[in-house]
This record gives sequence, structure tokens and C-alpha cells, in this order.
Amino acid sequence: MTDQQIEQILSLYQRGEISSSEATKKIKDLFYEDIGFARVDHLRASRQGFPEVIFGQGKTEEQVLAIFSRIARRTPNVLVTRTTYGAFTEINKQYPEAEWHEQARIIRLFRDKTDRGIGEIVVVTAGTSDIPVAEEAALTAETMGNRVRRIWDAGVAGIHRIIAERAVLNAARVIIVVAGMEGALPSVVGGLVSVPVIAVPTSIGYGASFKGLAALLGMLNSCASNVAVVNIDNGFGAGFVASLINRHQGK
Amino acid sequence: MTDQQIEQILSLYQRGEISSSEATKKIKDLFYEDIGFARVDHLRASRQGFPEVIFGQGKTEEQVLAIFSRIARRTPNVLVTRTTYGAFTEINKQYPEAEWHEQARIIRLFRDKTDRGIGEIVVVTAGTSDIPVAEEAALTAETMGNRVRRIWDAGVAGIHRIIAERAVLNAARVIIVVAGMEGALPSVVGGLVSVPVIAVPTSIGYGASFKGLAALLGMLNSCASNVAVVNIDNGFGAGFVASLINRHQGK
Amino acid sequence: MTDQQIEQILSLYQRGEISSSEATKKIKDLFYEDIGFARVDHLRASRQGFPEVIFGQGKTEEQVLAIFSRIARRTPNVLVTRTTYGAFTEINKQYPEAEWHEQARIIRLFRDKTDRGIGEIVVVTAGTSDIPVAEEAALTAETMGNRVRRIWDAGVAGIHRIIAERAVLNAARVIIVVAGMEGALPSVVGGLVSVPVIAVPTSIGYGASFKGLAALLGMLNSCASNVAVVNIDNGFGAGFVASLINRHQGK
Amino acid sequence: MTDQQIEQILSLYQRGEISSSEATKKIKDLFYEDIGFARVDHLRASRQGFPEVIFGQGKTEEQVLAIFSRIARRTPNVLVTRTTYGAFTEINKQYPEAEWHEQARIIRLFRDKTDRGIGEIVVVTAGTSDIPVAEEAALTAETMGNRVRRIWDAGVAGIHRIIAERAVLNAARVIIVVAGMEGALPSVVGGLVSVPVIAVPTSIGYGASFKGLAALLGMLNSCASNVAVVNIDNGFGAGFVASLINRHQGK
Amino acid sequence: MTDQQIEQILSLYQRGEISSSEATKKIKDLFYEDIGFARVDHLRASRQGFPEVIFGQGKTEEQVLAIFSRIARRTPNVLVTRTTYGAFTEINKQYPEAEWHEQARIIRLFRDKTDRGIGEIVVVTAGTSDIPVAEEAALTAETMGNRVRRIWDAGVAGIHRIIAERAVLNAARVIIVVAGMEGALPSVVGGLVSVPVIAVPTSIGYGASFKGLAALLGMLNSCASNVAVVNIDNGFGAGFVASLINRHQGK
Amino acid sequence: MTDQQIEQILSLYQRGEISSSEATKKIKDLFYEDIGFARVDHLRASRQGFPEVIFGQGKTEEQVLAIFSRIARRTPNVLVTRTTYGAFTEINKQYPEAEWHEQARIIRLFRDKTDRGIGEIVVVTAGTSDIPVAEEAALTAETMGNRVRRIWDAGVAGIHRIIAERAVLNAARVIIVVAGMEGALPSVVGGLVSVPVIAVPTSIGYGASFKGLAALLGMLNSCASNVAVVNIDNGFGAGFVASLINRHQGK
Amino acid sequence: MTDQQIEQILSLYQRGEISSSEATKKIKDLFYEDIGFARVDHLRASRQGFPEVIFGQGKTEEQVLAIFSRIARRTPNVLVTRTTYGAFTEINKQYPEAEWHEQARIIRLFRDKTDRGIGEIVVVTAGTSDIPVAEEAALTAETMGNRVRRIWDAGVAGIHRIIAERAVLNAARVIIVVAGMEGALPSVVGGLVSVPVIAVPTSIGYGASFKGLAALLGMLNSCASNVAVVNIDNGFGAGFVASLINRHQGK
Amino acid sequence: MTDQQIEQILSLYQRGEISSSEATKKIKDLFYEDIGFARVDHLRASRQGFPEVIFGQGKTEEQVLAIFSRIARRTPNVLVTRTTYGAFTEINKQYPEAEWHEQARIIRLFRDKTDRGIGEIVVVTAGTSDIPVAEEAALTAETMGNRVRRIWDAGVAGIHRIIAERAVLNAARVIIVVAGMEGALPSVVGGLVSVPVIAVPTSIGYGASFKGLAALLGMLNSCASNVAVVNIDNGFGAGFVASLINRHQGK
Repeated sequence: MTDQQIEQILSLYQRGEISSSEATKKIKDLFYEDIGFARVDHLRASRQGFPEVIFGQGKTEEQVLAIFSRIARRTPNVLVTRTTYGAFTEINKQYPEAEWHEQARIIRLFRDKTDRGIGEIVVVTAGTSDIPVAEEAALTAETMGNRVRRIWDAGVAGIHRIIAERAVLNAARVIIVVAGMEGALPSVVGGLVSVPVIAVPTSIGYGASFKGLAALLGMLNSCASNVAVVNIDNGFGAGFVASLINRHQGK
Repeated sequence: MTDQQIEQILSLYQRGEISSSEATKKIKDLFYEDIGFARVDHLRASRQGFPEVIFGQGKTEEQVLAIFSRIARRTPNVLVTRTTYGAFTEINKQYPEAEWHEQARIIRLFRDKTDRGIGEIVVVTAGTSDIPVAEEAALTAETMGNRVRRIWDAGVAGIHRIIAERAVLNAARVIIVVAGMEGALPSVVGGLVSVPVIAVPTSIGYGASFKGLAALLGMLNSCASNVAVVNIDNGFGAGFVASLINRHQGK
Repeated sequence: MTDQQIEQILSLYQRGEISSSEATKKIKDLFYEDIGFARVDHLRASRQGFPEVIFGQGKTEEQVLAIFSRIARRTPNVLVTRTTYGAFTEINKQYPEAEWHEQARIIRLFRDKTDRGIGEIVVVTAGTSDIPVAEEAALTAETMGNRVRRIWDAGVAGIHRIIAERAVLNAARVIIVVAGMEGALPSVVGGLVSVPVIAVPTSIGYGASFKGLAALLGMLNSCASNVAVVNIDNGFGAGFVASLINRHQGK
Repeated sequence: MTDQQIEQILSLYQRGEISSSEATKKIKDLFYEDIGFARVDHLRASRQGFPEVIFGQGKTEEQVLAIFSRIARRTPNVLVTRTTYGAFTEINKQYPEAEWHEQARIIRLFRDKTDRGIGEIVVVTAGTSDIPVAEEAALTAETMGNRVRRIWDAGVAGIHRIIAERAVLNAARVIIVVAGMEGALPSVVGGLVSVPVIAVPTSIGYGASFKGLAALLGMLNSCASNVAVVNIDNGFGAGFVASLINRHQGK
Repeated sequence: MTDQQIEQILSLYQRGEISSSEATKKIKDLFYEDIGFARVDHLRASRQGFPEVIFGQGKTEEQVLAIFSRIARRTPNVLVTRTTYGAFTEINKQYPEAEWHEQARIIRLFRDKTDRGIGEIVVVTAGTSDIPVAEEAALTAETMGNRVRRIWDAGVAGIHRIIAERAVLNAARVIIVVAGMEGALPSVVGGLVSVPVIAVPTSIGYGASFKGLAALLGMLNSCASNVAVVNIDNGFGAGFVASLINRHQGK
Repeated sequence: MTDQQIEQILSLYQRGEISSSEATKKIKDLFYEDIGFARVDHLRASRQGFPEVIFGQGKTEEQVLAIFSRIARRTPNVLVTRTTYGAFTEINKQYPEAEWHEQARIIRLFRDKTDRGIGEIVVVTAGTSDIPVAEEAALTAETMGNRVRRIWDAGVAGIHRIIAERAVLNAARVIIVVAGMEGALPSVVGGLVSVPVIAVPTSIGYGASFKGLAALLGMLNSCASNVAVVNIDNGFGAGFVASLINRHQGK
Repeated sequence: MTDQQIEQILSLYQRGEISSSEATKKIKDLFYEDIGFARVDHLRASRQGFPEVIFGQGKTEEQVLAIFSRIARRTPNVLVTRTTYGAFTEINKQYPEAEWHEQARIIRLFRDKTDRGIGEIVVVTAGTSDIPVAEEAALTAETMGNRVRRIWDAGVAGIHRIIAERAVLNAARVIIVVAGMEGALPSVVGGLVSVPVIAVPTSIGYGASFKGLAALLGMLNSCASNVAVVNIDNGFGAGFVASLINRHQGK
Repeated sequence: MTDQQIEQILSLYQRGEISSSEATKKIKDLFYEDIGFARVDHLRASRQGFPEVIFGQGKTEEQVLAIFSRIARRTPNVLVTRTTYGAFTEINKQYPEAEWHEQARIIRLFRDKTDRGIGEIVVVTAGTSDIPVAEEAALTAETMGNRVRRIWDAGVAGIHRIIAERAVLNAARVIIVVAGMEGALPSVVGGLVSVPVIAVPTSIGYGASFKGLAALLGMLNSCASNVAVVNIDNGFGAGFVASLINRHQGK
């Protein structure tokens, strides 16, 4: 809400071009538009290739389809996370270009593939069991307009595996590291590069992993200073934050 | 370790300009320099305005002084975190330009003030008690070559305080949010902007805050997708990650 | 147990209208009635529109029906919480006016709709997943004789949503805020109003929400001073406490 | 921000009584006053006998004195919680009417003693060690314009002690129950009355009380439906919430 | 292993009644019998009316039947805990006098009903959901030769219920109190009597009861000095300890 | 409150020996006397050799002295736990027979040494660091009229130490086992005897003992069925419960 | 990478036997071969009788079969842990010598039975429920070329059971102790022997065992100095570590 | 207790060389010596170079000196852990050859330096703050007759540091890895070698390290199969277990 905006309304009102109640409404709109930034952001975001995202968990297939249809009309890219193949088959009937990503359990409509990133996002996993969460991150980042490189199964107990990828890591603009069990990989990757590392603990593990708590604590206590952490199994969040890091200023 | 580097040594050796043992040593150096990336990074980093950082905690004033002196010879900017005024007075005798930051308990030598950031880093606190941690973040970011804006005491129980700063927040390249107690501010800020938010839980709080655990869990479970988290009270880490986000690609 | 009550019995006995053993029994009844306040309260309560409440969890449909029938004879309003549609169909055969509330999983007999409140109770949720718990709270409050307003999906990551409802919030006598994940909404609402806020953490969340623990700790550590908390997912308790707050003194 | 307010400004502007820039400023003020509710609330609150509260913890005696002096000029009642006798002696020089409450560690300026409550607030403790927290609650409630009754040392291991006070409990508008160790007293009190009970766990206890965690969990799991809980040792919060419950609607 | 035993063997050997290797074996037997106390205890125990106990959990119906049959031949009383009705029907074919206890999920063979107790054991529950655990305790105690009194559903939120039973409580030799949720009942009972109270936390509860943790901590922190605690839902253990307390010295 | 008592009052009233208001008062007294059991118990208890106990923790030396003096006039045995030598020297001036127990930090007045126990109480510790807690238990039991045997430093890593004491253990009426670290000793002792074992976890331990939590959990999960547990470091509670177990019925 | 290796390449290059680019490649290979140790280890290991291990959990039967077939061609011994009988029947068709171990849920191909151990590995369990985990340890150790002795059901509540096995224990080179509930057995065994003890906590237990946490903490806090711990239920890890301890140096 | 031992006594008795009571005593001694293995072990151990160890924590300097003197007479090597320089100066007066190790806070008498190990023990730390715990491990191992190599400050954030030491690591018989913060180093080392790794979590760390809990959980969940864990900060235990692993069979 700028002075100019208010003065413009006053001026219209002054000139009799709008009535008192119209002016009142316009000023209120100004106010609410202003407060209503989220909706504005929302529009701006989708113009810039931010996908609309539907969290599938806890929704019926019908609900997912209904929401998907409404969104797919006005925005090129749509992502449904934590959903089912059943929901996909419903959507697929109407949107043959929709994709099903089995591992990530994601439905994607990916019609705008503009590259909007500064550089490349690299997604790394410690083990093969971490791939579903990593795919969620990778697909989120791709759909938000980023080039994504995947490095699977490069855990610290075979340290040469990640070291062999140093060139790829160093070329990245931001790295997502997905790991369960002791969650040590982000520290190693963090030490190898000078870009931000987004660490995603997974609930993969046995016994005293306590459903990802061990990995989470490990990552929060990383001795590498360039590591920040998202919630357990939150691949989507990691992909989202990494995409924002890889965006040009001004976006 | 590039092909060119190896071939150059082979060529010198071929031309008899270096002996076999000298060539062997040079190749080994190459190897170790290569593995020794951290040191290389280190040099590159300090050329780029990354400060050398000394963690003061658990070190005697003599130790801090000794390390400081050695570093200050070869690098323009030095940061000592979690240190004492006593250590500062010792350092100040030799380095009159050294600064003491009481709240952050930081000693800083800040001789290279080049701005290396894409945009601005905004640091926000929920309460006044969170300022020491926030100052650690802000000073780290400044010393790493970023313009920093501070917004203190804008906690969610007086929501207008943070909303009033929306313009500043939206102009940022990356935002650091520092909060104790329920740690709710990063979610609110995250919802107001479309840039990455680095959340720092603090150990500020009473009773069931359990020394920052409540704030930490709150931030990890943020309903805003653009929030990543660092360790409790880890202002330095937040400032470091934010600086990397605000860097130009290729740095 | 008042002096009057005792003296009345003594007087009856004195006049020979009751025998010694009858007097003894009456005095004992007095005593037990007195200690037996719960039963007394119970009667008084149901006279005042407090519903009888049956916790359905762990009870068979037959048991629910049997208890329901007994209660429905003597009290106008009955609530069955955490129950099943199957139990409802059984009850519905005998009580066609009984209602089934799918989201809250509540069966309700709502025959006395007297408004007994000082003002209005507003129930707010952070997300759509929190609605079942919020509906439990809202239905409890309604059935206890309160006017209830619902505001769904007004979480802090889109702060304008709750701010837009400020007028409604400020008109309330007491507000119930239901939130999972980081549980930040009660702090924001608490800061917007000067009435009591009853916060209900829900078990909604992923990973490190630890089944509502993150939200619970967040709410207990609220920086707003007018927030009190009930157990995780305890919509009934929140509705009950809020109803008592909204009652006229003397009740 | 009402339509009337906007139209009034438009009208003034229309009639030429204010300039365009004055109208712009007035509209912005409206907006900011509107968003700036906290400050407005604050004024309203202090008019109504809400005390200004200074959290003394972590502040120097000089800071406490400085803040106190500024506040004491414009508001009749001031409360400093978690403070020191040293701070009191400084304040006492300038404000001889200031009171020192040793157990609660509270400084109080209590010049407006208007009773603003619907009824009485009763504060109960389980043990003598819980009294400091209970006193913080009681003094907060008193200073906010409530009549307060204290019942100390009525823990459940001597159940007759609380039962003997039933008449007092039943006459209350709201009850604050303060207990450490197993935190069982709120359940018992909750069962005795039909008014809201605000439960305050204290950090009093040994071994597996884990600094109030046992009492906190006990209270959250209370089998009495009229109990809501605040943070461990948060006497101030309990007093504050209870005061709001005891206020007349519209306040 | 007494001196007499050794000397007796030496004497036999001396007199040539046993060979050197026989003497060696006898001495070794002495040693192992001595170490082998548990088996001896076991025999002694069953002579005294201690039932043999089979933990049914994790065993197939066939396994339960097989073990039961073997034991039932040599000992009058047998208890199978945490078992199924299916196991009972198998056993019942061979042992028509076997009993099935639905709530406790216990199979019992109760042929020796001698009263071996000093006094009476009273078992109390806070709620009706606690009865299965309490029945396990009560049946264990009965089968071990104790008179048992049951008081169900006497939780602290209706404090008159337990007070009304004071006469029964005071007549007990030992009391078992079974409670979930906040686990407050043992403190109240402990305060009413001067005999030992064995507290059993149950996993009954919602949300922050954390599967009995709240009740467990509450009981461990009981302000009554005569309370000792067993594991969550461990009705058998409580019945066992109480039986030992109710035994005559020398048993 | 018996029928006889009521009828007696009615009869007095009937005969005109007491007035209506006197009868009313008498009936009310009956009621209150009845509720007032604790005080009665208290007197009875001290008559029977229960010591009066003062928890010294958090009390000044003056307070301890004052309370001690008042109690020592009317009761033969007094115990002050968790107190200081300073408090003892004050008490000792007036009560030369008072004893100071350095390890347990207990002051004791032990004038009535009647043996009121059925048998002997044995107190065992796993290590020497557990002795202070064990002494608190032993002194409590002694002062309550029991013969006590002490076995110090018989932890499970040298299993022969406890096995060598089997004869003593088997002769006991009840055993108190005090252990820190892994808290394994109660299971071993429980397996060796057929009397109740009261287990006391201590806060002795390093690292992951988490101030007694490891020992506490170990004891609660004991595979011996005759073990019940008290709070961490709660020697007094263990001594108290054991004394009640060792009492004659009817006491 | 030795000096000799580099000099050899230089020499070849010098003599013109390899070109500059060949020399460059060889030097790089040297480097990468060096880093590529894990694969080398892997081969060496399988030559020495280390089995290939497939973690079956989370893999389909088809996946297990496919991996198994590939491995079984090049290595004599294969272990599939945490798998199903269904997977076994598939494998068994192609590998009739494959074994199914029901309790451990392990498929094993055991074609090389060379004894490679220094001595014997003894595996002990506290209860019968711990056997599946213990079998996983025992089968792992056997398959890695060790003689294994099993002692089942020797928990501390019947201490004679483990003492009776002292001779066996003392003859071992390393002992694996598997226990749930309070996890006390490793301390007892540790005290009986002077060889390393590998402790495996199991998730066996009730209530406050918290899925093995109690046993884990107990073992970490063992008062025996020769105990080291692996993750909850990690029989494989224990068998693996024990096998390495039992290997000849130089292996 | 062997057959031979018993038969020898019988034979002496038979031949009249010992009386009946002497034979009885000898047999009992045999028994107790047998049960009394710990003492026997102890003697054997010290003959083999096991040092006597005194835990200094919680002992006065006088106590340490007294125990030290008694032990030093009969055993060549003595270790006092967690002690003070003050205790050392006392001991040093009598034992000039005693050593003070400042970092480990250990006093050592190291007179028997026989190498009893199969190979070498390598001790590695992640950071410099972990050195005190690592030194405790190293000194313990040395004093027990092992050659020890130290690698300090080789944490995973600079992965080249540990890789550079691969040759040393691979030559070890057993490796001790000491790390705080995220505790990731044991996994990396475990992956580099095929010998047992004993992991020691330290309490070094900030915020969510929770005094070593993060490192402990990380190590327990290590993805390397050759890692076993001891208690937080338990350098002594790690050195002890490693020494046993490095012993020749039969010792």
C-alpha cells in the first residue's frame, strides 16, 4: 500500500469519478490486497513456474482429482505428493500428460519446463532406502524450474563413493543430502563444498534410530557450517528451499 | 588435479628441468593438494572475503590470542565467537582496529569490507533475549561480505510488528529468523516472503522449553515450506549458510 | 450439607414423622449426597444444559447404545465422542432426532438448545486436518449451550487469513485454537485478543512432530500470556473448559 | 477499521478541511492503528487495570529501574516478576509505595485497586514449596483487579485438606492449582467444582520429576474435563488467564 | 551347602561306602544344588500355593497347551496371562475346571484355594478402562492364596468414590492401585492408609499420556511415602509383589 | 461414621439431653472428624514408633531447628533428611542425644528403639557411591522400629559378592536394593529370594545414565516378578515402604 | 600410492614406452585406484570367507532372488537377513542347498565352512524371546567362519543358569549377549570373563521398556568394563563385530 | 573347581594328612575361590599386565593416595582416572616415577611396559575437544600392554584428513574412534577398514547435541557393520575393550 495508491483513489473520488462508497471499497480493497499478499504471491509464484502443490496424504482419490482439476486449468505445473497410484489413474484419464512417479509417490503435471535456476541442484542419498524421499525433493526442484542431478547410494561407510563425485558436487549451486540411520553424509558433503547443503533426515533405520531422530540430531549437530536441516522425510521442503536458493534475485 | 597439471610436471621432467624425485614430489603434492581441498578452499575462501573463524569456547585467552595473531597476518577478516572481553583486551593491544561486540561475545577484525552478496540478508528476532544469537549471525554475515538488516523483537504475539516490516522482508535475498520459546516466528516470516528462511532456535524460554527443544521442534515442523533449521543457539551457522545463499554462483 | 437440612430431619424425627432408623438413613444420605457431590453436580449440570458425555473409544456398539438409551431418558442432551457410524445407526433407530457428525465422529442428541453463554465461543484451526478435533470442541461447546463460530484453515504461514478475522476474534468471550505441526497459531491469536485462548495441540504433522509433541511444547511455551493448553487432540476438553469460561457466575 | 472511519476522512477531504496528503496520512494511520492493535490494546488494557508487566529475569537492576520509572508515570499498576531485592531497593527510593514480595520475587506498584472481577479467584498449592509460583499467580491476579483467596499446602496425600475447603472452591469463578511432583491436585479440584481450573506444574520434585515434566504430563492428562494447563512454573501466565476468565464481557 | 553336608560325604567316603569318584560327584552336586536354588525355590514355592505362571504373549495356542499340560500334572494352580480365548478352548477340553477370565485375558486352574495371607489385598482402579490390568493383579493374588477385594472406577476426579471406601482400604494388608492418564490415585490412596501401596500405571490415556509414561512418572513422584511402582500395565507383577507382602514370615 | 453414632445422637436429642443446634453440631462433627482422619492417623502413627520426618532440602537451618524443637517435645523419634551439618550443630546444642549421619546427611533423634518388625530388613547397594541413598533408607527403617542389615558394594559385575550373601538375603522379610548405572542388581536379588524387593535407582552414573533414568528403566523392566520401584535417589521412600511391609497386621 | 609407483610411471614415460597422455592417465588411475579401496576390500573380504549380506527388509521377493542369484555366482557364502519364507522358496528352487532359518528369518548359502577364527564365539540370551536376534548373530558369525556356541535363556533373575556356564564362557574368544527388558545380563557375563562382550539390546519387553530403550541404556551403563554395545535388535552387527574380533591379525 | 582339585583333597584326607575339618574348609575354599573368580581374575590379570584402576571421581585426594599406595605395592601398573593434579602431587612425593597426564586427568604408574598385544591400537578423534576422552582411552590401552597410535582432529567435515591416514588405520588390530557433535567419524573409519571399531561418543557439542546423545545415537545407528559403542565420554571402557580384542587367545 503506497501513498500513490491512496492519493490516486482520493483523486478519482475528488473528481467525482467514483462515489464515496466506491472509494471506501477501493481503499478497503487496497488494505485487503495488501494484507492478502499470500494470494498475490501465489499468483506471482505460479507465473514464475512455482508449481501448485497438493498434499495427498489423508485425502481421498476423489478429493485429489477434484482439486487437481481445478488447479490444472489455471497453472501449468501441478504436483501431488504422498498420494496413490489410484489417484493417478483417475487424473490420468483427464490429463494424459500427467506423470506417475512410483518411488516418490508423486503425480506431476509438468507443462512449463523453463529453466529458472542460477545453477544446478544436486540431490544425494546415503542409501537406496532414502531414494523415495530424495525423489520427492528432486521432482519438486525440477518442477520448480531447476536442473537436477541425482547421486544415489553414496553413504559414508564407503566414503570413496561420494568423493568420486566431488566434481559434480562442486559444480552445484546448492546440494540436498538425504540420509537415514546416523545421518552423517551431510557433514561429509558439507566439508567437500562451499555451497549451502540442505539436509533431510529420513525415518530409515533400525532400533535406536527412533524413526529418524538419530539422523535428525546428527544433522543438526553437523560439524560442517554450511548445513541447514528440514523435517524428517520432508523431501518436498528440501526441494522447495533449494529451489529458492537457486533462484535469481528479483524473482 | 587436472590433466594439465600432470602434463606440465611430466613436461618439466621430460625437459630435465626437474629430477625424478622432484617430479615424484610434485605429483604427490598435486595429489595431496587435491585431497587437501579444504586447505585450498580455505585459501580461495579467504581471498573471497570468508573470514577465518575461531571458536573461543573452551580456549584460554592466551590460546585465542596466539591463534588470532597467526591468522591475522595472512587474512584480512577474523572472527572469534563465544569468547570473552579478557581475550579482546589482549588482542586489542596488538590490533587496535579489532572490535568487541558485547552482546554476541564476538571479537572481529574487519579489514576487507567488500560487498560480495547478491542482495541483502535480513536478521529478525522474536524477542530481545534472542539478540545475542542474532548478533552472532548478523556479524558473521557482515564479515563474510554481506549487507545485513536487523529487525529486533518482532515476535508473533504482537503480529503487527513483523507485518510492518514486510517491505524490508520482501526485499531480502535470504532471511535469518532467531526465536526461542515456541519458535513460531519463522513460520510467519516464511509465509510472508518467497525467499529462503534460515531458522535458529534459541535456548531462551522457561519450563517446558527444555533449553530450546520446543523452539527447535516448532521450526522443524514449520507449515511454511521455505524454512530450514540450524542447531539451537547456532547464530554462526545461520550467518554462514545465509552468506553462501547470498553468494554469486562461481563465487 | 447445611444446618437447615440436618435440623429439618431432626424436626421430622422429633415430631415422630420418621423413625430413628429412617432419621439415621436420611442423615447418612445427606452425608453421602454431600460427599456425593459429583452426582449432585451431575443433576444440577444436566438441568443447566450440560450434556451427558459418553467416551465411545473402546466400547462396543451395543455398549454405546445401552448407555445412551439409559441417559437419553433423563437428560435432554447427550454426546458420544470418538465413536463409529455403526453405533450411530443403532441409536438412530430409536432416536431419529440423533445426529451423526462425521468429521468429529460424534453422535449427538441435542434437544435443549437454550443459549446459556455470556458471549460467543470462536473455534479456529490452523489447517484442514485439524478440523476433526476442532469439530469435537465446537460440538461440545454448542451442546453445552453456547453460540459457536468456526474459522477453519487460518494457519500462520498465511498470516492474513487470521488477521482478516480479527473482528470476529475480538468479539468472542473465549477462543479455542486447534493446531498441529508447530502449533504456532495460539500465540498469534493470543496476541490479537484480550480474552482467554484455549489451545489444543493435534497429532497432525510429519516426522519430528512426534504425534503432537512439537505442537504441545509450542503452545506451552507461547509468548502470549493469555493461552492455556489441553491434551493433544482433546477437542472435548477444550470445548468443556471454554463453556465453563463462557458461563454466568452462579451457574 | 470501519467503513464509517474511512468515509469520515473522505468527507473531511471532500469538504476541503484536510489536504490530500493529510487524508493520505489519516488513512495510513487508520491502517496502522488498526494493525497496531497491540499498542491500542495496551492503552485500553492499562485503563482497565491491567498492570504493565516487566520480566525481571536477565535484566540488570539499572534496566529494571529505568523501565519501571518510565512505565510508572503513565500507568497506576506495575508488576516486576522474577526480579531481585536489589532492584526493589533502587525502585523503593523513588516509589516508597512500591511493595516487595519475597516469596514470589515480585516488585509491585499497586495504586489502582478497583475490583474488576465477576467473582473470586482461588489459588491452591499442593505443597509449601509451590508457594512462590502460586504467589506470582495470586499477585498477578490481584494487581489485575481480582479478589484472590489463597489455600496453601492442600496436596492429595492428605485429601481431607482440600475437601475441607470445598465451600471456598465452589464459590470461586475460576481456580488456579499449583503443584509439583505428581501434579495430581488439579484433577481432584477439577472434580470438586464446576468452574474452570488453570493448572500450573512446578519444577518442585526429586529424581524422575525431571524438573516439572512429571507434573506437566499429569496435568495434561487430567481425568477432570475442566482443567487447562500453562507452562512449568508459569505463575504469571496462570494469573493472567484466570483474570481474563474473571472479567466481564465487553470489559 | 553346610559343613554338615560336606562332612557327611567325607565320612561316607572315609568308611569306604562311596568311591573317590562318587564322593567327587556328590560334592559337585552339592555345589550345583546350592547354586541351583531357583529350582529348589520353585518347588518350595509351588508347595506353598504359588501358581506356575505362563506368559502367553508371543506363544502359539499349541505351545500354551503343551506347557500347561506339563505343569498341571505336578502343581495345583496354573495361570496363563496375556493369552487368547482360543488357547482356553484347547485347554478346556482337557481341563474342564479351567477358567477363562475375559477381561484379564487369563486362563486359570485354581484347585488349591488355601488362604495363605496375613490379611486382605484390595485392588483399586481409577477408571473402567484400567480393569483388565487390575483383574490380572487380582487373579494373580487370589491364585497365590490371598483374599482380594475389588474397587473399580474410583478415580480422583470424583474423589468421594474412593473416600467412601476408606473403611475397606484401612482394613487391607496391602493395596494395589491401578490407574492410567495422570496416575494420581495412588497418592490419594497412599494418604488415606498406613499400609504399602503398589501402584500400577496403565497405558490408558490420550495424546500426551505417551502410552502410560505420564501415569508412570506421576506414580514415581507420588507425594505419599508408602507408594512403590511396577512397570506399565504389569498387573501380574503387582499381584505378585502384593502377595509376598501379605505372606507370613517364614512362609 | 457408624449408624450407632448417629442413633446415639438422635437418642440424646430425643431425650432432650441436647438441643437441636447441639445435635446439629454433633452430627457435623461426626462428619468432620470422619474426614479428619489424617490427623488421627498421624497421632496413632507416632504412638507406634513412626518417626516424624522433616525434609531438610530448601529449608534454612533456623527453620529446621524450629520445626525440630516443636516436634521433639511430643514424639520420641525425629528424622531430618537431606539436611546440613550446620543444622545439626544447632540442634545438637539443645538435643545432645541427636545424631549426625554424614553419608546420609540425616539428623536423627532416636529415643524409642522398640523393635516393631516381623523380621529383618536387608539393604544392599551395587556400588560404594550408592551408599548415601542406602543409608537414608536404612536409617529410616531403623528409626521406624526395624532391625536392618547392610550389604554394601555387591554389584552384578562381581556376581559372587551378592551370591555369597544368599543366606542373609533369604532370612530377610523385605529387601531394599540401591543401584545406579544399569540398575541390574534388583533383578539378580529378586531371583535369589522369595520376599518383596524394593528397588531404588540412584543418579550415580556417567554419560547415558541420564541422572538415574537408565537405572530407573532397568528396574521397572526387571525380569524378576517380586520387584517394585521408588523414585530416583528416594532412600527415604524405600525405607518407609519396607517398614510398612515389615509391620504386623493391625500394627 | 607409493613413490615407487609414481617413479615407475615416470620411468616408463621417460623411456618413451608410454605417451604423455598415457602417463597422465596412469597417474590418475593410481589416484583413483587408491580411493577405490572399498571395492578392493570387498573382493578381499569375500575371498576370506566374509559372506555377502543382503538386507531383506523392504525388498520384494523378486528383488531378493535377483540379487541373491547374481551374488551366489561369485561368492560361496550368502546371507539374507530380515527376509521371508516366500523369498526362500523362490531361492530354494535354484539353490537346493540354501537353508531357511525360521527364527532368525535368514536365508543362508553356506558352501565354504572353513574355520577362520582364533577361538570360539559364545552367544547368550537372557530369555527365549531374545533367540531370533541371537540366532541372527550366531548365523552371521558361523557363516563368517567361526565356531559358535549357543546358551539360551540364562537371564539374571535365575543367576545360577549363567553361572553354571562359566566354563564355556571362559573358553570363549568373544561373547555376544542378547537381552531385552532391563538388559542386565551383559554386566553379569562381563564380570565373569576377561574377553570382550558384545551386548545386543532387544526390543523385547513391556511398558516402560520403550521398545528396547531400557535395555540399551542398561548396557551402555554397564558396570563391567569389557562391554561394548550395538543397536537394538542388531544381531547381524554383533555377529559381524565378534567375527572380526575372532580373526587372526593380517587376515 | 575341577575334579582333580576335589580328588586331591579327598586323597590328602584319606591319607590322614588333613583332618575332617581341614578337608571341609579346603572344599569350601575351593567353592569360594571358584565363585570368587573376580579376585582370582584380578590376580591373573595383574600378572598379565592389566593395570589396577582407581576411579578418582568423587574420591578425596587422601582416599586416592591411600588406595594407590596399597595397590602400588603389589602390582606394577596403576591407573587413576578422572582425578586431580592435587592427588598427583601427593602420590608423586612417594612415587617419583608416577606420571601426570593433564588432558586425560590421569595419574599413571607404568613400571611394566611389556607389549602384550597382537597388533597396534589406533585412537582417532574427530576434533581437538575430544582429545581428553581419547587420551583416557589411549593411556588405558598403553598401560594394559598395547602399542597405541594417535590420530587427532580428523573429523568428517574435512574428510581428507582421515583418508590420508588410511595406511595407519588398515595396519591396526582394532581402532577406537572418539567423536562428539554428530558422531559420524566411526562410520567413515568403519567403512575404511576391516577390523573392529570401538566408538566413543563425547559430550562435546552445542544445543541439540544434548550432552552426547546425538553422537551416541549416531554411532549406534552406524551404517558400518564393524562398529560397537561404549558410554558417552567412556574413554577408559573403550581402551579396556580394545585391549581385550588385541590380546592373544589364552592371554
